[in-house]
Amino acid sequence: MSFEKVVEIAKRRGFFYPGSEIYGGISGFWHYGVVGTLLKKKIENEWRKFFVKEEGFFEIEGSNIMPKDVFVASGHLQSFSDPIVQCKKCKALFRADKLIEEQAGIFLPEKTSVEEFNRIIKEKNIKCPKCKGELGEVRFFNLMLKVEIGPEKSEIAYLRPETCQAIFVDFLNVYRTSRAKLPFGIAQIGRAFRNEISPRQALLRQREFTQAEAEIFFNPKNENLDAEKFEKIKDYKLNIWNEKQNQITTEEFSQKIKSKLVAYYLAKIQQFMERIGIPKENIRLRELGEDEKAFYAKYAFDCEVKTQIGWIEVVANNYRSDYDLSSHMKLSKKDLSVVEEKEKEKIIPHVWEISQGVDRTLLCVMLQHYHEKEERGWEWFSFPPKISPYVAGVFPLVSKDNLPNKAKEVFEILKNKFDVFYDENGSIGRRYARADEIGTFLGITIDYQTIEDNTVTLRNRDTTKQIRVKIQNLVEIIEKLINKEIEFEKAGEAV
Amino acid sequence: MSFEKVVEIAKRRGFFYPGSEIYGGISGFWHYGVVGTLLKKKIENEWRKFFVKEEGFFEIEGSNIMPKDVFVASGHLQSFSDPIVQCKKCKALFRADKLIEEQAGIFLPEKTSVEEFNRIIKEKNIKCPKCKGELGEVRFFNLMLKVEIGPEKSEIAYLRPETCQAIFVDFLNVYRTSRAKLPFGIAQIGRAFRNEISPRQALLRQREFTQAEAEIFFNPKNENLDAEKFEKIKDYKLNIWNEKQNQITTEEFSQKIKSKLVAYYLAKIQQFMERIGIPKENIRLRELGEDEKAFYAKYAFDCEVKTQIGWIEVVANNYRSDYDLSSHMKLSKKDLSVVEEKEKEKIIPHVWEISQGVDRTLLCVMLQHYHEKEERGWEWFSFPPKISPYVAGVFPLVSKDNLPNKAKEVFEILKNKFDVFYDENGSIGRRYARADEIGTFLGITIDYQTIEDNTVTLRNRDTTKQIRVKIQNLVEIIEKLINKEIEFEKAGEAV
Repeated sequence: MSFEKVVEIAKRRGFFYPGSEIYGGISGFWHYGVVGTLLKKKIENEWRKFFVKEEGFFEIEGSNIMPKDVFVASGHLQSFSDPIVQCKKCKALFRADKLIEEQAGIFLPEKTSVEEFNRIIKEKNIKCPKCKGELGEVRFFNLMLKVEIGPEKSEIAYLRPETCQAIFVDFLNVYRTSRAKLPFGIAQIGRAFRNEISPRQALLRQREFTQAEAEIFFNPKNENLDAEKFEKIKDYKLNIWNEKQNQITTEEFSQKIKSKLVAYYLAKIQQFMERIGIPKENIRLRELGEDEKAFYAKYAFDCEVKTQIGWIEVVANNYRSDYDLSSHMKLSKKDLSVVEEKEKEKIIPHVWEISQGVDRTLLCVMLQHYHEKEERGWEWFSFPPKISPYVAGVFPLVSKDNLPNKAKEVFEILKNKFDVFYDENGSIGRRYARADEIGTFLGITIDYQTIEDNTVTLRNRDTTKQIRVKIQNLVEIIEKLINKEIEFEKAGEAV
Repeated sequence: MSFEKVVEIAKRRGFFYPGSEIYGGISGFWHYGVVGTLLKKKIENEWRKFFVKEEGFFEIEGSNIMPKDVFVASGHLQSFSDPIVQCKKCKALFRADKLIEEQAGIFLPEKTSVEEFNRIIKEKNIKCPKCKGELGEVRFFNLMLKVEIGPEKSEIAYLRPETCQAIFVDFLNVYRTSRAKLPFGIAQIGRAFRNEISPRQALLRQREFTQAEAEIFFNPKNENLDAEKFEKIKDYKLNIWNEKQNQITTEEFSQKIKSKLVAYYLAKIQQFMERIGIPKENIRLRELGEDEKAFYAKYAFDCEVKTQIGWIEVVANNYRSDYDLSSHMKLSKKDLSVVEEKEKEKIIPHVWEISQGVDRTLLCVMLQHYHEKEERGWEWFSFPPKISPYVAGVFPLVSKDNLPNKAKEVFEILKNKFDVFYDENGSIGRRYARADEIGTFLGITIDYQTIEDNTVTLRNRDTTKQIRVKIQNLVEIIEKLINKEIEFEKAGEAV
């Protein structure tokens, strides 16, 4: 299975690996190595460019630990839980829904009751997968991680299970300090924490993970979305999936759901996934049914990516109505409503949420661009140049005759402009292979001709074709190749 | 006091503010608003450029939650604690060392024993500052924040109290996957958590904070520092402070402490502080005395910044010897030693640590560049252009006659290249003042002449001088002004 192979190469080449591995670790915590940190930061920066720079969202950075009241208001303390069941014999604990899925092939919605779980376990004769023992009663287990603060540990706080609560509690501050006008977005990239019962599939279900979230606040009576922005996107086709695939333009879809704003941001998230290298045919916006949505959600669409292990949810897109601001307003007794010039009435803005799992996105990008060993004798990744961990490797053909010094000169020219590495160990073929394994876009080789005429060979990872270019043009050529402004074969003459 | 004024403007303009403020919050947790997030990210990115790109350190990203064993090995579980004392009458809790400092003016070293604390409290007649009641016995209070993981909450883990433990447990993985050779650095920017007894002074003592840390691994018998790198820095003067100020070149100091590597990285951290806008005369490298250092530290230098409230420690620089790797090796029973080609013997590398408090650094930068209202009628910040939250504000002179549309065109040209904002509300003078308040480097005003000849006025925040430049040259001029490649007065003609 290529999923396992990707996890294996991720560990071997320093993309990601289990956290605190020398101690065996605790499952559900992964660390990013050198290559993975580069890839993750690039995906985060593309997201930031796309939503913060281009869409003009306001970015904030809240704390990971937040006081109890925040999660009383948000509803997490009451209802953010999974159904668990314990084996009466061996005492092992399992997620009830997953056991039923595995042993009876029944997929139960999130809202299933304890009684319903118990009934199905009995009816389908579900047993402990470890010892075949009889299972006890199902109960709900809260996924929040508690932290006790202060010298007497008297202040109860929680690690946030989603980053967005910081956005809601800071809403008024951002609105005021930024002199914002509806509609506007607040974004945040940061960690979230959940006490998952059975973490699994590497980065897919972790106990600590990174989210990139944006909450777009708007007036439901007058969305007031910038007409020019919508005009640019109106003919873009959305891959809506509602029991079957529907290709529909953003404009048509906006009419169907009676919201230009919702259609616009669905188009945007699909475009973002395309931008980081997921082909359109492998992206779908799956509309959630009534039994899958949170009770406050008017619409919800999961942006999913097709991979070797099936469709993976990477972005939850939810119409959260005014649920969050109203709940926080009620409990905090602070007025979180706004008065817009035109409306002259108090509004509690509604919220459209874009909640992206950064680690899942990274894993999908790796799965998408992974190539098996059979193809060219070694595994390789065809990441888009913009997010390739390293743009280029710099290689002296041999480790003698001053070639390493010349290669280091080239490396010094490039290193402050791009992520590049220098490697002089082993045969040049072996070095190309190692560079391919971590998805390095270009290979720059310094050979005897370089000493004579200051040209180097440039090797294209995707085609393995090579061209010769002048050192003085390297920076410009690499920039243009990253931005796809020139063709590789003609890069030597293009600048 | 300008410290209070800086905290006030930070709240008012969205630099930073108490976290979860609408619920009163828990002290010691702060959020960054829109302007503060921009400033913080820029400081982090300068650090990354300086140490990861230019010095070639390997960057990783570990988890915030780590298993108990990590902190058994690191010694945190046993000794990472503060002395606390409770009032027998009102039951309030205090840090014993701080009470003694406040009431008796005695500064006690970190290694002071419980007996010594109790003796001084009795001798100096230290009382409860709240109710004057008698104090109980001093005890040590561990600052680690515990998290219970798993469905039975049986796996004990902790939020890391310093980011560097992820670097130590990942050492071997980075060494192998990056084919690194000693000496090399591993860097990480991330959160750390401490259950401080009395959080105070805004960002200075928080319970959740951001660290930028680098651990440089080297062979103590043969440091093997790049000679060219040292050559470049050897005449640079270090501000060593050891009871008094000593200006000494990096080379001389390296001879004194018999380590080029230590002297080199002390110079580097001082240079970094200069790069983000702290003048050299306000930086010192204070050598810690025997009673202040951790027991494993051979040398330790706090990089401190002079501010309106005294010298603030922003970077701890520690020679940690092989303490960390040896401790983890012992407990994990994994071999963390390395064999370097030349040496042909097993080495447990020694470690030089650079541990920078990002929030403290940001606060020092704000204090350094803060200007009182008296100076020009409003408060302003003279941040270096490279780290100014916004490089420029774009302003139509008036909100009519098509000037806003023209201004928005200029804004669109600039927004993907720089952090810029658009503002058309209020008089132009008021808008300049608002831009100054958040340290915006340039003001770009679109007036009636713009419509005629496509020129705009460029206002320099620091001098309030204005020049006229062509729109088509704006990007280049701004880039050159940020990099200080041209003089402001001559910018119009310089490109």
